[in-house]
Amino acid sequence: MFLRNCWYVAAWSAEVGRTPLARTLLGRPVMLYRTVGGEAVALEDRCCHRSLPLSKGRIEGDHIRCGYHGLKFDRTGTCIEIPGQAHIPPGARVARFPLIERWKLLWIWMGATEPDESLLPDWHYIDDPAWLCIIGNGAKPVPMNCNWELNNDNLLDLSHVVYVHPTTLGSAGLENFPIRTERFVKSVRMTRWMPDVPPMPLFARLLDIKGRVDRFQTVDIDLPSHSVVDAGFAPAGKLAIDDDRTDAQRACILISATPETETTSFMFFAQARNFAKDNDELSRIYQQGSKVIFEEDIAIMEAQQRAAGALPDAAQIDINFDAPGLAMRRLVQRYLEKEASNA
Amino acid sequence: MFLRNCWYVAAWSAEVGRTPLARTLLGRPVMLYRTVGGEAVALEDRCCHRSLPLSKGRIEGDHIRCGYHGLKFDRTGTCIEIPGQAHIPPGARVARFPLIERWKLLWIWMGATEPDESLLPDWHYIDDPAWLCIIGNGAKPVPMNCNWELNNDNLLDLSHVVYVHPTTLGSAGLENFPIRTERFVKSVRMTRWMPDVPPMPLFARLLDIKGRVDRFQTVDIDLPSHSVVDAGFAPAGKLAIDDDRTDAQRACILISATPETETTSFMFFAQARNFAKDNDELSRIYQQGSKVIFEEDIAIMEAQQRAAGALPDAAQIDINFDAPGLAMRRLVQRYLEKEASNA
Amino acid sequence: MFLRNCWYVAAWSAEVGRTPLARTLLGRPVMLYRTVGGEAVALEDRCCHRSLPLSKGRIEGDHIRCGYHGLKFDRTGTCIEIPGQAHIPPGARVARFPLIERWKLLWIWMGATEPDESLLPDWHYIDDPAWLCIIGNGAKPVPMNCNWELNNDNLLDLSHVVYVHPTTLGSAGLENFPIRTERFVKSVRMTRWMPDVPPMPLFARLLDIKGRVDRFQTVDIDLPSHSVVDAGFAPAGKLAIDDDRTDAQRACILISATPETETTSFMFFAQARNFAKDNDELSRIYQQGSKVIFEEDIAIMEAQQRAAGALPDAAQIDINFDAPGLAMRRLVQRYLEKEASNA
Repeated sequence: MFLRNCWYVAAWSAEVGRTPLARTLLGRPVMLYRTVGGEAVALEDRCCHRSLPLSKGRIEGDHIRCGYHGLKFDRTGTCIEIPGQAHIPPGARVARFPLIERWKLLWIWMGATEPDESLLPDWHYIDDPAWLCIIGNGAKPVPMNCNWELNNDNLLDLSHVVYVHPTTLGSAGLENFPIRTERFVKSVRMTRWMPDVPPMPLFARLLDIKGRVDRFQTVDIDLPSHSVVDAGFAPAGKLAIDDDRTDAQRACILISATPETETTSFMFFAQARNFAKDNDELSRIYQQGSKVIFEEDIAIMEAQQRAAGALPDAAQIDINFDAPGLAMRRLVQRYLEKEASNA
Repeated sequence: MFLRNCWYVAAWSAEVGRTPLARTLLGRPVMLYRTVGGEAVALEDRCCHRSLPLSKGRIEGDHIRCGYHGLKFDRTGTCIEIPGQAHIPPGARVARFPLIERWKLLWIWMGATEPDESLLPDWHYIDDPAWLCIIGNGAKPVPMNCNWELNNDNLLDLSHVVYVHPTTLGSAGLENFPIRTERFVKSVRMTRWMPDVPPMPLFARLLDIKGRVDRFQTVDIDLPSHSVVDAGFAPAGKLAIDDDRTDAQRACILISATPETETTSFMFFAQARNFAKDNDELSRIYQQGSKVIFEEDIAIMEAQQRAAGALPDAAQIDINFDAPGLAMRRLVQRYLEKEASNA
Repeated sequence: MFLRNCWYVAAWSAEVGRTPLARTLLGRPVMLYRTVGGEAVALEDRCCHRSLPLSKGRIEGDHIRCGYHGLKFDRTGTCIEIPGQAHIPPGARVARFPLIERWKLLWIWMGATEPDESLLPDWHYIDDPAWLCIIGNGAKPVPMNCNWELNNDNLLDLSHVVYVHPTTLGSAGLENFPIRTERFVKSVRMTRWMPDVPPMPLFARLLDIKGRVDRFQTVDIDLPSHSVVDAGFAPAGKLAIDDDRTDAQRACILISATPETETTSFMFFAQARNFAKDNDELSRIYQQGSKVIFEEDIAIMEAQQRAAGALPDAAQIDINFDAPGLAMRRLVQRYLEKEASNA
């Protein structure tokens, strides 16, 4: 059901501390906490004795003690104390999930293979001083009642902004510019190049932009769902589609959908930009707007999920703009098959 | 599961306008709207591209545009525009369901065969000036958490009024009068003839009726669930059981239960009468009473549904008064088998 | 799924009167009422005609009349009247379940064999004047969203009080005293003997106890879930583990968990003690504390149930203190197999 040999966002760093955090990820109950030294730990959230979630227990130093019969587990998930007996049987342990803490996020590996740090996406935007980054939803995930892959589809076909976000992103006419799809080993890229167009009204007003611009949208999604939506503009005629964008005005939206179950997910998101970093009014308007935008997207995806539940076998057609989304679904499918054949 | 080659009530005419109405009928999501010229249209409520309900989209002239990627469909369900491409693939369509608008209702045909207008029941009472007709529940269906066939059972055994509606319809002693069951090609009729009885207290008081009356109850149910409950009275001795009833004082209750799913339904109802048409007090009391009566019936049917869910294989006995209800269930079963053998 | 040839607590006597009480027991809908003479009756809560729960009907003398078509049943579940017909078909009956009323409780037998009064547990504490007994939760069962057997596990391993009830029962160090498990034909006993320990703080204060005591805990569970938790103390050195406890200060908690479904149960409980029977402050504090304690236990068991639902096949380890609980589960299993082989 889920890709396992890859990283998922488990939580924002700020969510995890000295009180257990319970979160179901990929259908498995997980509990997160920090040791005295600040190391984040992720354990299966189920005591191996009588199944009480360990998150209902108590942190003692670097360890967690079950709240039912007092079994104590260390940060590796090994049981190190059983009240009333000296002997600890060998099977007394719960699964521990490797974590990497980077870019203010906790990345979890729930696969059967060794964790591979090289599979992390590049989300440096979050703490790179060249960017101003606003963390979404107060550093909490947004719960979504839909399968995580719908979010990949959503981001890889931005023609939806005309219909789903008419009052915020709008951009009527965007659908007249063709898209390019690129398929990589573990990611897919969609690019739309919109030369010689008016600037987006919000930026034109707040940044006092005169004249026409070249706009671009690039969406990179790394397996399984780590997305960078790089949208920006430069004065018309300064850039070509594949030029270095360092000097362009760019907004990079970072989004990842972690599956909770087959039909529910957590969306983590942040918004970085490399321009007008001191413009608080822009920040404020941008944040308000993005709240509306994500709510609009989630309403669409949840309605799709309900429709899929009601008519699971209904046929569907594809359109030209689906090319990147279909490429991503094929990539996921290929990796799922690889995991199944290795299992 | 459902009879398909027949008409169902989809909505009251007044419910459907220039804003999409979403309603699940026979387990399928349907959306209803009207064209500029007022024609009512029923389409499958699921875009053939990525399954968003079309009812979440926008009506443009006579057409509906999907709210996700902007595909546009005409009143026949054919896709006539796909943003970003000129070619429209041949499978780009959603199902369209034939409608007939009559007696202030929209009748829908969700079957595989050609719609057959001759299968409509005769519900002329709703707009025939010989009758005063009060439309039930403000021209909205009443949702019921039960299978639609329980409603047929309920109406074809009116002996239940003694126990279910003691404070409104009451009629203790009614069970002492025998019933007659008639089986027709596509309907069943139950008749109870109660000669030389006191008038119903409500009518006796409001209409100042002296002396005894002959009362009758006839319930006709046309496939699948279109019911006319014709209940009335005449001065004792004036009528025989099968006489023309034109001159009797008659109340005709029209009821149809459209399945939403196997376990939920929509009840549409209206109350017509051919007497005391100007008596507003009677109308008011009648309307208030019928609200209570339908709530009582629905409470019974929903409890039956829960019981059937808890003990689906429990045996049941039949009693004499079940003859019309059993005849109707056999008729439905025969048509279901006919549809299955033709499929 | 359920042991059937045994007694279950159906209700407190005070719950059942001249209005039908509906309660699902062992997955079957049951209705309870009393005859004019006060005899308690338990019938299947489903009319054998069209499945309406009989509890929605009306008690008439010693009988119950269905609220839909008026079929009347006597206290044995036999239909004795069908409106509109003289003949009553032989299958017109609903199941009747034998009841015994004792110790202010109604004990029900839902098995296929003859009820065996000798299988009742000994719960004389409830109305024996040698004891003061406080009936729990205002003589109503406490609903629990968990399987009934979790309650047996809970009571047979009282080491949990250290972790689950730290602010009320506490007793840190209790886990250092070994337990003894005894297996009988239809029950299991756990005994913990804690010689020469300080008295429980609450009792030391309220009863002005000086000096050390010997404490004991004995938990007897009779099939399927009738538990007597006998906890008490005597001045240190006066008693040995198996001595007669008549002169000790004893609190006997009576608890039974009746299955409603596989995943929900009703907990019935009462607290008896043979000391300080006039001490109202002790009664009040004891009652308040027990409310908190049962809420804590139920929260644990409900979390276990959710975990079992999420990961039904997860392995578990056992610890030394599980011996009594495992003995009880094996006893239940043995009787289940016996019932299955006789069926």
